[in-house]
Amino acid sequence: MTKQTGRLTLPTDADIVEETIRLKNLLGADALRDCDGTEMPDALLNEPVKKYATYYTTRKDNAWAEQNPEEIQQEYLISNRVTARSEKLCIRLMEGFHTQQLKVNTLDDPKRWWEVIDRTTGEVVSVDDWEFKKEREEVEIKTIPYHEYTVSFLAFLIWDPVHMYNFITNDWKDTPHQLTYDVRQPKTQKYVKEKLKRWCEENPQIDVVRFTTFFHQFTLTFDDKKREKFVEWFGYSASVSPYILEKFEKWAGYKFRPEFIVDQGYHNSMFRVPSREFKDFIEFQQQEVCALAKELVDIVHSYGKEAMMFLGDHWIGTEPYGKYFAEIGLDAVVGSVGSGVTLRMISDIKGVKYTEGRLLPYFFPDVFGEGGDPIGEAKDNWMKARRAILRSPLDRIGYGGYLKLASEWPGFIEEIQSVVGEFRQIHENMNGTKSYVAPFKVAVLNCWGGLRKWMSNQVHHAIWHRETYSAEGVLECLSGMPFDVEFISFDDVKKGIPKDIRVIINVGDAYTSFSGAENWIDEAVVTTLRQFVDEGGGFIGVGEPTAYQHQGRFFQLADVLGVDREMGFSLSTDKYNEKNPQHFILEDIEGDIDFGEGTTRIYAQGDHYQILAMDGEYSQLVVNQYGKGHGVYFAGLPYSPQNCRILLRAIYYAAGMEQEMKRYYVTNVDTEVTVFQKTQKIAVINNSGKECQTDLYINGDFIVRLTLEPGEMRWLNETM
Amino acid sequence: MTKQTGRLTLPTDADIVEETIRLKNLLGADALRDCDGTEMPDALLNEPVKKYATYYTTRKDNAWAEQNPEEIQQEYLISNRVTARSEKLCIRLMEGFHTQQLKVNTLDDPKRWWEVIDRTTGEVVSVDDWEFKKEREEVEIKTIPYHEYTVSFLAFLIWDPVHMYNFITNDWKDTPHQLTYDVRQPKTQKYVKEKLKRWCEENPQIDVVRFTTFFHQFTLTFDDKKREKFVEWFGYSASVSPYILEKFEKWAGYKFRPEFIVDQGYHNSMFRVPSREFKDFIEFQQQEVCALAKELVDIVHSYGKEAMMFLGDHWIGTEPYGKYFAEIGLDAVVGSVGSGVTLRMISDIKGVKYTEGRLLPYFFPDVFGEGGDPIGEAKDNWMKARRAILRSPLDRIGYGGYLKLASEWPGFIEEIQSVVGEFRQIHENMNGTKSYVAPFKVAVLNCWGGLRKWMSNQVHHAIWHRETYSAEGVLECLSGMPFDVEFISFDDVKKGIPKDIRVIINVGDAYTSFSGAENWIDEAVVTTLRQFVDEGGGFIGVGEPTAYQHQGRFFQLADVLGVDREMGFSLSTDKYNEKNPQHFILEDIEGDIDFGEGTTRIYAQGDHYQILAMDGEYSQLVVNQYGKGHGVYFAGLPYSPQNCRILLRAIYYAAGMEQEMKRYYVTNVDTEVTVFQKTQKIAVINNSGKECQTDLYINGDFIVRLTLEPGEMRWLNETM
Repeated sequence: MTKQTGRLTLPTDADIVEETIRLKNLLGADALRDCDGTEMPDALLNEPVKKYATYYTTRKDNAWAEQNPEEIQQEYLISNRVTARSEKLCIRLMEGFHTQQLKVNTLDDPKRWWEVIDRTTGEVVSVDDWEFKKEREEVEIKTIPYHEYTVSFLAFLIWDPVHMYNFITNDWKDTPHQLTYDVRQPKTQKYVKEKLKRWCEENPQIDVVRFTTFFHQFTLTFDDKKREKFVEWFGYSASVSPYILEKFEKWAGYKFRPEFIVDQGYHNSMFRVPSREFKDFIEFQQQEVCALAKELVDIVHSYGKEAMMFLGDHWIGTEPYGKYFAEIGLDAVVGSVGSGVTLRMISDIKGVKYTEGRLLPYFFPDVFGEGGDPIGEAKDNWMKARRAILRSPLDRIGYGGYLKLASEWPGFIEEIQSVVGEFRQIHENMNGTKSYVAPFKVAVLNCWGGLRKWMSNQVHHAIWHRETYSAEGVLECLSGMPFDVEFISFDDVKKGIPKDIRVIINVGDAYTSFSGAENWIDEAVVTTLRQFVDEGGGFIGVGEPTAYQHQGRFFQLADVLGVDREMGFSLSTDKYNEKNPQHFILEDIEGDIDFGEGTTRIYAQGDHYQILAMDGEYSQLVVNQYGKGHGVYFAGLPYSPQNCRILLRAIYYAAGMEQEMKRYYVTNVDTEVTVFQKTQKIAVINNSGKECQTDLYINGDFIVRLTLEPGEMRWLNETM
Repeated sequence: MTKQTGRLTLPTDADIVEETIRLKNLLGADALRDCDGTEMPDALLNEPVKKYATYYTTRKDNAWAEQNPEEIQQEYLISNRVTARSEKLCIRLMEGFHTQQLKVNTLDDPKRWWEVIDRTTGEVVSVDDWEFKKEREEVEIKTIPYHEYTVSFLAFLIWDPVHMYNFITNDWKDTPHQLTYDVRQPKTQKYVKEKLKRWCEENPQIDVVRFTTFFHQFTLTFDDKKREKFVEWFGYSASVSPYILEKFEKWAGYKFRPEFIVDQGYHNSMFRVPSREFKDFIEFQQQEVCALAKELVDIVHSYGKEAMMFLGDHWIGTEPYGKYFAEIGLDAVVGSVGSGVTLRMISDIKGVKYTEGRLLPYFFPDVFGEGGDPIGEAKDNWMKARRAILRSPLDRIGYGGYLKLASEWPGFIEEIQSVVGEFRQIHENMNGTKSYVAPFKVAVLNCWGGLRKWMSNQVHHAIWHRETYSAEGVLECLSGMPFDVEFISFDDVKKGIPKDIRVIINVGDAYTSFSGAENWIDEAVVTTLRQFVDEGGGFIGVGEPTAYQHQGRFFQLADVLGVDREMGFSLSTDKYNEKNPQHFILEDIEGDIDFGEGTTRIYAQGDHYQILAMDGEYSQLVVNQYGKGHGVYFAGLPYSPQNCRILLRAIYYAAGMEQEMKRYYVTNVDTEVTVFQKTQKIAVINNSGKECQTDLYINGDFIVRLTLEPGEMRWLNETM
């Protein structure tokens, strides 16, 4: 029988002591935590569980911030784009920003750290041709009429963005706005270390210091109406200061430019192909941040406590798949699980003793209130998380927010009881062993590669965007599939594709970092990939793979994929595309395929293609024989159980390994099977909300027909 | 009472003499013509009507072609793209082409006239690194493994493409394939002139020599299954020969390259931004072709006959809006009317005495057969043509094909009787005067400008393409609207926008010649247009106007239009777009707006926009105040009576001249009004297939409520 305790962290608060104990016992929690805006009650400090304390290195000390205004954190902002109508233009810097969050840095020399750019030509305006008018917070520029201008400038973050977000979301009234301070700078650094030591001494009952987080907040900027203006979970724009940038210049050996950070106003969104300078900056920040984080972690360890990092908020510079992360010496990472992808983003992290996933919903009034559906969100979240856990388990799960809200919502506690039960059952049955994977690896190819595993094709993680779900679905499908998945960059391709990779996936919109942009006119990239496929590999493209308009093609690997996109230039070329859906990939599939937003104007071409799905005259799913290998093209692939199955089959087909697919297999597309060969346990899960029948195959042979309840996870013994 | 005769040309044939006379009398035709595949019967030569004879300068003389194989017309072809798998590659030149249509030119030196290109790098392969293997019709290339290669080569056009098309469409069996010959070359030129003189002498009863056409066929290439492979109505790929190209080199002062013509395989489709070299080539060909055409026209005139040019088939080099066209001295141009746009393309031509439109359907068995709907096509064609004729009239109309098919189709003759009646009525009431237009001009801005008036945003003219109808609709709407329309190029903009232009329209897909591509990063273009709007002008963008990814914007005039397109890079920027459809532009409009295929990912931005229509979170119709002027953005605008009305209002709004709109106005969106002030005649047309009521306004005052039959044209006196 499955253990009924452990692996679970619950939040608590001052007003819910008795209920916390009741729920802890009911759910078998072995850890309690506080959250932003809640407090760990003294009465619980002696409970026989681990106590986590949320620890903020850069805020919750306004006194220090106010005494050291020059060490308040800074952010590079870009002003509105303003078109000059004459030869003089004044740009009001803070227009559109919230002055409670950000304040123009007037301490450091604007001429040294700011940049005025003519966005019509891209040229930098000479510092002699503009002046900062401090009293009006305006920059006055000598302009060319009808050119458009921006000012990139530094501002102090006088309200911590996450505190501001929590404040607004929870409608807090009298909480003072928390300022931020920059732990990288010497005075603050010394102070923060001392303070951490003192805190450790004063909190002997705390077992786990949950850093939330280290030093730099991801970019989260509010507008003048206190609405979110810009949010980039991977953004480095708020990790800057003249102190840091001068160090960067010495390290890099070249002069820093604000444009490296503001990036035409895109702020180095993950979708942008990273510039060399931005990559340098990330590298530099990782080195510095990880080294300093290690010092804090060492302090924590010296008091016999564990150090845990929250993967979020001030996580910038600690990229968990970066080269320096393991050196921090953390015991654990905890992060928010919004989907299978975000779960894998946490559970695949190396260099820590354990990982913890904070499941959704967060216990905040936006969900636990009128119109909210916390039970539905919990079910949905678990259904996506579960299939990913079966492939790569988190060690622990937990929740966050106000426990009171959860305990008062009818039926919610029962729902998480069931989640926690299944989670423990998975651990019991897998017993630390790895689940069966196909005898080849699958790689996702984009500009970020291994540095940002499971992070691609999304905006703020796990948030649905009409522009991204049709691409992100590929990763969501993969997160629960029986494949070892690598994330590789174009540099990796050029160094030579490792022999164990048999299928490469390129998914994204044209000219983004995910599709690859100018990498597709790098002959070393295209020749390596053509050879890879020609010799038997598989190449799967989704959306606008390999896209770059060049020499008569939009998709540079049109020959491999068997498709190209009509950009208007080849409308004069007749196409005679016809559908033939009889194919291995669609053998289990009934009804229409969901390509999400899809991609218009795709046509098949060449002599070796077969079109499996069309929308009018446009092709949506195409396979192509290329030498000994295969190309597969999808117009889009949002997550759904059916699309998981289509992708599973497409991968086996692309690999030329169709015969391996039924090593372990369940027929119903709403179901999936995971096998732990060492423990001889088999899990069959129903990913749908309805009862279904499915046939289990092992080694190609029919074994048993199963009837699964909605959402059920059924365990079988392999030796049955 | 309207005249019952004149302005009409009917086709005839040997087998339909009596019926021709009956129909000529019934319909009041004043001209008869033969067609490709038909013959003018001798019995009709004495009828009291004008006789047109179709005259072919480049075909119908296989004996000559066979005696002079080196003067057969040639076409630049590009081979299939083939990926090298080793260091040697053989490309079979004729793969995918039809060997009955085209034959590799082995007479001229391949090393001089062909080009092998590495399409992976775009580099030309040295002539030392490839060999033409004549016996196998292959080119053997020294290659870099996994690079892709093409061969550009010359082939003789051994079957005239239009003859081949007619042969296939009519399922002719024993007609010999007509070869083509190049009238530009000295021997043939001399021969053709002599022959024309002889022909004029031998055909004294012929009044009009209908050139079909001059010397070079537009690009029309068939594949190995006799299907259309490539068709570009504007294409110059079949107007080449070493003789011509050597002359071009002398004229241009630089070496010719096949790439100027094959253009990466796109063959200089109208959608491509034309290269300098291609523009030079067009210019050169126009000069040469027009000068030679003049010589033939002079011959015709010397025999007292008229010379008419068919705008199609071998029309290449005679661009009717080009600088040299008028010098040909033609009496008339005749062309196929597929829509309002193609009608205006003919009726707006200057430099001829009259224009004639060949209405649809063409009397061919594909329409006059099972499943065909010739009456529906005729109605549709007339409904679109009529509104354009009211703005810019053709002088004559006519039909083509086999008269027998038309005469035998029940009800068809009655249908064209009604068309011809309305056509004559328009002429009677307009009496050679110009209809009322708004007190400002509208300009369509693209890379082709005035050279290709009414020719933009289409593939083969008036053929529906899913990729183009949402853009072409703008022109179709304009073709019947009360505006003087100019077509201007980016060079025109840079020279200074003429004062009488008040609204500029930019419509098309990103990076095409119609949108403008790199012209949008030309600061002279954007500053001129910004100033134009700032000072009160209007700028209307449809689809992907002003698109070029540069300095933080996709639409370079995002500030003017109030919108940009989300290319993934700014997903981190929050948008708060909300719809407010209360606006002058939508005052008459009920129900949904049809944006056709639309444009996804459009969002409004800036401080001066109003969103009139949305699809989820994407904007579809946005207006923007810009200084004293206005921007208007449409996600697409297919032709429909409702969209004509929306565009009419958008233009008056963009011009800041809303108060002028009701100078003459009808309320029902299915109706339009045309006013001939000099004759005091007003036409109100019903563009829909249903009865409707509409209120006529003059000078802003209600005049009368009219009830119009389906498709009716009602004439009123302005003085009523």
